[in-house]
Amino acid sequence: MTTISVALGARSYDVRIEPGLLARAGEVLAPLSRGRPMPIVTDTNLAAHCETLVASLAAAGVSAPVLTLPAGESTKSWAQLEALTDWLLAQGVVRSDHVIALGGGVIGDLVGFATSILKRGCNFVQIPTTLLAQVDSSVGGKTAINSKAGKNLIGAFHQPAVVLIDPQVLDTLPQRELRAGYAEVAKYGLIDDAGFFAWCEGNAAALFAGDPQARAHAIGHSVAAKARIVAADERETTGTRALLNLGHTFGHALEAETGFSDKLLHGEAVAAGMALAFAFSAEQGLCPAEDAARVAAHLRAVGLPDGLAAAGVTADGATLVGHMLHDKKMEGSTLPFLLARAIGRTYLDKTVDLEKVAAFLDGQTA
Amino acid sequence: MTTISVALGARSYDVRIEPGLLARAGEVLAPLSRGRPMPIVTDTNLAAHCETLVASLAAAGVSAPVLTLPAGESTKSWAQLEALTDWLLAQGVVRSDHVIALGGGVIGDLVGFATSILKRGCNFVQIPTTLLAQVDSSVGGKTAINSKAGKNLIGAFHQPAVVLIDPQVLDTLPQRELRAGYAEVAKYGLIDDAGFFAWCEGNAAALFAGDPQARAHAIGHSVAAKARIVAADERETTGTRALLNLGHTFGHALEAETGFSDKLLHGEAVAAGMALAFAFSAEQGLCPAEDAARVAAHLRAVGLPDGLAAAGVTADGATLVGHMLHDKKMEGSTLPFLLARAIGRTYLDKTVDLEKVAAFLDGQTA
Repeated sequence: MTTISVALGARSYDVRIEPGLLARAGEVLAPLSRGRPMPIVTDTNLAAHCETLVASLAAAGVSAPVLTLPAGESTKSWAQLEALTDWLLAQGVVRSDHVIALGGGVIGDLVGFATSILKRGCNFVQIPTTLLAQVDSSVGGKTAINSKAGKNLIGAFHQPAVVLIDPQVLDTLPQRELRAGYAEVAKYGLIDDAGFFAWCEGNAAALFAGDPQARAHAIGHSVAAKARIVAADERETTGTRALLNLGHTFGHALEAETGFSDKLLHGEAVAAGMALAFAFSAEQGLCPAEDAARVAAHLRAVGLPDGLAAAGVTADGATLVGHMLHDKKMEGSTLPFLLARAIGRTYLDKTVDLEKVAAFLDGQTA
Repeated sequence: MTTISVALGARSYDVRIEPGLLARAGEVLAPLSRGRPMPIVTDTNLAAHCETLVASLAAAGVSAPVLTLPAGESTKSWAQLEALTDWLLAQGVVRSDHVIALGGGVIGDLVGFATSILKRGCNFVQIPTTLLAQVDSSVGGKTAINSKAGKNLIGAFHQPAVVLIDPQVLDTLPQRELRAGYAEVAKYGLIDDAGFFAWCEGNAAALFAGDPQARAHAIGHSVAAKARIVAADERETTGTRALLNLGHTFGHALEAETGFSDKLLHGEAVAAGMALAFAFSAEQGLCPAEDAARVAAHLRAVGLPDGLAAAGVTADGATLVGHMLHDKKMEGSTLPFLLARAIGRTYLDKTVDLEKVAAFLDGQTA
């Protein structure tokens, strides 16, 4: 068992990583339950994992009513948020209770947000079942739903009480989902850890082939990196946490252009966005061209999109920059960008000229 | 101008109290706007005050788009929350912007909650226009909407950037609303300040007659009391802030019984609830009977209900206790009660036997 602590004072918590942990979740969670039920919220794809979890809790003497929501991004809605909070209230959840989010980023974001506003805040537990949720969204307390105007525009910072990661649940994850999550793994190397990116280049094949040690190392290293960054800047006010957004501003434009649909998964958009951030940095003379080429090559090698064409996007630069202006990270009329000086050396630039970004993007599709 | 500071570290803010402040709000708020618009959210009863505020902001060079919502408790709904956040997003509000809540508790609670979840948190300003909002709900950061299961069950702690109180706006407030707000003023005396309760007994008539000095003293003293209590226990975890709930558990049952309707305003329910809390404490031998009688007499004297009959409630004790079990302050199967040892000496009791409460309430209606 690897345990990584997210150090946030009174809001500190552990991330526990161990193969087979789902089936032992009951013994880990029983002390938190203090004799109260622990409601589980999950989605329609996860019936088997949910059965394992319920049995484990029952064996530890914890009752666990289950709410199963539709799988997919459309569940991060106002309607589902209201329905979920109504269900939790009907279960009699009180502020000191713990609600379990069993699922990927959609379930984690929705349950995290619902529990942050239920009676002005109750507790929740993350049990992430996708690689993306395990290495990124389940740690750090960002929770949200989508609004008509865009993704994740309504939400809260709400830290879980504990995160339980069982790498074995990835065995049943579709390869495309695994690849999408891997984009966030590679990201931790690109932002500030060139050594880890080199590890990724050497071990991605083993990870995708299901090698348990490669998976455990990738997850543990990613969670430790995220924990360190979140502890330094919980609410993204100093610029440190913003590093985690590498590729996300370009990626956001691609997701908006493809309608936030299954045409382009979030992780796929982030991969293409990271390649674009490095290519733009290289074009601006900020970063060696060979670093940008190395980033693109690795993403291609694992089957991730390495730019606009591979992401299936043909829109012009002005259209894509138009999407960026709806990014919630806009500060007045300024949009901060994550740019690169090299692999493992990214930084936040608040002075990027959006016309140059549009011209760069036009050059990519030309 | 009286300025009271709410000391909450990085979330500290000032409450400014001054007759005529609404017409001078622009000069106070312009520095916060930093050249950005300040959207105003208000209700259909407040057109004249809103015009004053918009003109004052315009004179200070601040543009202020206005959203006018229906007056009344039903505006604290999921549907209005979604519509309000959609409107704020359409206005292009960013995290560093300030949204103005101009209204009573409904507008303040709704706007406070909406801004707490908009892009995971933007700023807001409280300009309370009822006595209840001025002395209670605008200060302390409790924000919420209602759900099917009950009032204020969905919300957040979100502190305003500043609170601007203009006692002159009370001149146009209906007397019934003024009385309802006054219940919260008297509450500050009852919980821990017998001298202030004596001041209330001597000066309530002047306050209701419109005496500016009596109003200013009542508001200033109440806000200072609330600021002190909130600073000691922002999130109601130590028991100190719970003192502010005096009368609210009994009152909640009365509001539930009358359908949270205009039959019984929140402040009226709190008045009846405080009288019941003192009467129950006296019956249990915790508090002198003459103190309970004095509380009831003062509430009657100002035209507030002093118990079940005056509140128009005829339900039996079991029914009323049943409503209490849906209170969001339930801890597992325990409901903390505010009880009294004397006027100005209340305390939180987590061991109250609900059967005794039911029997006491039956005795009130018998």
